[in-house]
Amino acid sequence: MQKNVTETTPAQALLNSDMGEGFGLHEFGNDAALMEIIDVANVACGYHAGDPDVMNRTVALAAEHGVAVGAHPGLPDPMGFGRRRMVLTPEEVESIILYQTGALTAFLAKNGLSLNHIKPHGALYGMLAGDEDLMQAAAGTAKQFGVPFYGLAGTAHESVCRAMGVDFVAELYVDLNYGPGGELLIQRRPAPTDPDAAAERVSRAVAGEPVTAVDGTPLNIAFQSICVHSDAPNAVAVASAVRKALDSSRSAHS
Amino acid sequence: MQKNVTETTPAQALLNSDMGEGFGLHEFGNDAALMEIIDVANVACGYHAGDPDVMNRTVALAAEHGVAVGAHPGLPDPMGFGRRRMVLTPEEVESIILYQTGALTAFLAKNGLSLNHIKPHGALYGMLAGDEDLMQAAAGTAKQFGVPFYGLAGTAHESVCRAMGVDFVAELYVDLNYGPGGELLIQRRPAPTDPDAAAERVSRAVAGEPVTAVDGTPLNIAFQSICVHSDAPNAVAVASAVRKALDSSRSAHS
Amino acid sequence: MQKNVTETTPAQALLNSDMGEGFGLHEFGNDAALMEIIDVANVACGYHAGDPDVMNRTVALAAEHGVAVGAHPGLPDPMGFGRRRMVLTPEEVESIILYQTGALTAFLAKNGLSLNHIKPHGALYGMLAGDEDLMQAAAGTAKQFGVPFYGLAGTAHESVCRAMGVDFVAELYVDLNYGPGGELLIQRRPAPTDPDAAAERVSRAVAGEPVTAVDGTPLNIAFQSICVHSDAPNAVAVASAVRKALDSSRSAHS
Amino acid sequence: MQKNVTETTPAQALLNSDMGEGFGLHEFGNDAALMEIIDVANVACGYHAGDPDVMNRTVALAAEHGVAVGAHPGLPDPMGFGRRRMVLTPEEVESIILYQTGALTAFLAKNGLSLNHIKPHGALYGMLAGDEDLMQAAAGTAKQFGVPFYGLAGTAHESVCRAMGVDFVAELYVDLNYGPGGELLIQRRPAPTDPDAAAERVSRAVAGEPVTAVDGTPLNIAFQSICVHSDAPNAVAVASAVRKALDSSRSAHS
Repeated sequence: MQKNVTETTPAQALLNSDMGEGFGLHEFGNDAALMEIIDVANVACGYHAGDPDVMNRTVALAAEHGVAVGAHPGLPDPMGFGRRRMVLTPEEVESIILYQTGALTAFLAKNGLSLNHIKPHGALYGMLAGDEDLMQAAAGTAKQFGVPFYGLAGTAHESVCRAMGVDFVAELYVDLNYGPGGELLIQRRPAPTDPDAAAERVSRAVAGEPVTAVDGTPLNIAFQSICVHSDAPNAVAVASAVRKALDSSRSAHS
Repeated sequence: MQKNVTETTPAQALLNSDMGEGFGLHEFGNDAALMEIIDVANVACGYHAGDPDVMNRTVALAAEHGVAVGAHPGLPDPMGFGRRRMVLTPEEVESIILYQTGALTAFLAKNGLSLNHIKPHGALYGMLAGDEDLMQAAAGTAKQFGVPFYGLAGTAHESVCRAMGVDFVAELYVDLNYGPGGELLIQRRPAPTDPDAAAERVSRAVAGEPVTAVDGTPLNIAFQSICVHSDAPNAVAVASAVRKALDSSRSAHS
Repeated sequence: MQKNVTETTPAQALLNSDMGEGFGLHEFGNDAALMEIIDVANVACGYHAGDPDVMNRTVALAAEHGVAVGAHPGLPDPMGFGRRRMVLTPEEVESIILYQTGALTAFLAKNGLSLNHIKPHGALYGMLAGDEDLMQAAAGTAKQFGVPFYGLAGTAHESVCRAMGVDFVAELYVDLNYGPGGELLIQRRPAPTDPDAAAERVSRAVAGEPVTAVDGTPLNIAFQSICVHSDAPNAVAVASAVRKALDSSRSAHS
Repeated sequence: MQKNVTETTPAQALLNSDMGEGFGLHEFGNDAALMEIIDVANVACGYHAGDPDVMNRTVALAAEHGVAVGAHPGLPDPMGFGRRRMVLTPEEVESIILYQTGALTAFLAKNGLSLNHIKPHGALYGMLAGDEDLMQAAAGTAKQFGVPFYGLAGTAHESVCRAMGVDFVAELYVDLNYGPGGELLIQRRPAPTDPDAAAERVSRAVAGEPVTAVDGTPLNIAFQSICVHSDAPNAVAVASAVRKALDSSRSAHS
């Protein structure tokens, strides 16, 4: 099954979203609606966001909707929502991913689900994209759990997974800008995304056309999964537009 | 195997200790020495104490010494070391135990170990002993993981486990006082224990003699495991004395 | 000035609200609108909610609107939003209030404001209402800062403040139910309040008519300040309705 | 008085140490002995270490010993003991220093003390030394509180304080290595320091002789205060040796 994932063509790409990023009484409020739209949930595991009760509810919600669940481990920085880089050692990267992913598996087991993948959150995602030592630690955790790693094609995410024999699922982002080198420009508080622009990016990308970097550079982004964020006020509108674009591209290209 | 545990006689009791209760640069400093002495480690899981790096090292240390590892989940109160009661719902009790125990299993899997048991920490231990609703939530997590629950005989720990078909391992405490009803008097900062007194309590208990409550009441404590704490300065001396007493009682009673 | 406060008649009551209860990227989203409506802000200080950036923004917003700012210290339980009771010693109550209130004063000084009062949050508020030892510790912190304490008339809030010579400001709650003894029924996730019902309670209370407890008991609630919550989705509507009722009662009774 | 500090000659340097770096039940165990030796305490404020109860006890201990107390704010990273760099904005640096320093002032006021200085901890100290934008935010907080800033001569610590009119107290470190450019080599877990080597460094430095960098480069370190750490097992021995060396240098050079 993991093999299949990495052999997925763009037209077969699944839609993933970060879920369960509430904390205590706080939530972004889009999870219930998004679960109707997405294929795969990356569930926050208590470090950048999420708490055991939120995880419990989020995994149950995913199970109800037949949405596959992966771990979305983040930096131990709730105040910064895991979007501030921290200088960690590879051992620390391994430990925080093991901890958070392990925690999630207990809620998965309760709901009869098994872990689908690991996708790091925010600044940790960016740190791993650019640092092979840290990425080896992260890929090791995916290997231990026997699941694919979600990341950016052309970065250490991909090269290290390939070298270590870890299944790799490349993502296309529809609501973040790309730099001229194809790197993601992760913002602390992302600007709202225009649903039409997001849909257009998906349609073009599925058709094999280049995505435009923030400076106009055309980029060929390889991907097998498409990520939409859940923390923007209009997240549901963006996800719906992307879903529609993906489904119609899928009909066109299948 | 779990059957065996609960059929254990006092003379066959294993020695358990709370391990990995450091945090960041802080530790009580006794773990390495105690791992040489004990049979079973209850490893802190990041809430009342412990962090992913501490857990990583602690589980590896246990694996090296052939010490069985259980989860030691606590209240989300690091400042109070999990020794201050909090008013939680059964759902919250379930969630925090699932979260912490799941987190631990990732480090166990890394070291080729499987989860041995669940034993709650501090105020959570006391809360569960006296509240059947909360204890049902906790016993449910032991059931999910398929492991025994460590607790106090004659309390909701035992009655709920029996009712729910969860293996129950009764503990004898050598470094805490008992109240006249057999309840444990959990202190925020335990007074130092006299190693000889601890050893004597073990010898008497293994011989089937009563343990003396704080007010002089003789108590018949059923137990299959003996707990020594690790956070006292003289924890190693107490554990050594208890080990010796247990081993010689074992020869005498076997 | 503090004298004036405690001699305030119901018709002169000020409107207070808990502000700054966001954390990181999370917020309830009502603060900017509520600052236009209220007289006094109780600002969360980082324990049950709030973080230094949120506090910085919230105090600046209050300063802009000429809203007086008091400390709203809570229990060290962000996951439970400070609404789960914890067993604390008086020394711990003193320490956590000093810590949080001191932290707030730095943001006040930056904005040229001085501390207006101390009002504990959630479960801490309830704990202090019913425990004279804890309340003495809390009242001591108000005394140290030379500010009034906001609380419930007829509880230890009032009796201890009176005994210790601490100015006491009694609150009327418009969006929480009262028990038959006049105690507040603090809920983890308060039900939405009907703005008209809230307005009517204020009008009646200002007119000296009794407030109705949850079981129908008529209660005479003494108050010099009226609290509206900010964490309900319709908080702005409730506050507006209360403001209008208070202002028209004020005209009628002045 | 602050003027005096910055005009202090090396022979008049005071001895400062980081105090109150325990958390909950955990402590390094050296504070009581060090308070007898040092002149100035930098008290942890709850982020990298310290909690309200620890702060309460630490400030009382300092007051008893006539030790001056400054704030020792750190990064919001208790797990990393504030020794892992984080990417923060100037606004965030300002907020976390205001928050922590404000919190400390409440305990100072309780003990009749006033704030002596601000000295950032660990990675925050290093971040500020090398970044003028962040350092302007930090210096602004010292200005608001009207106290000197402790830091490293020749870095942004000094240049920004000079430019902003903030009193600056340069520190000599006796238990950390210096790089060839005079920068401090901050380690996560510092190696134990030889008390004699520490004493010799102080004697040489007070005599105006160069300190040797880790690669042998001779460095002329300007200083008005000498820092000894408290988190090493032999911290008391190092501090005693330094105290003796400083006192005898003082006699020799006065």
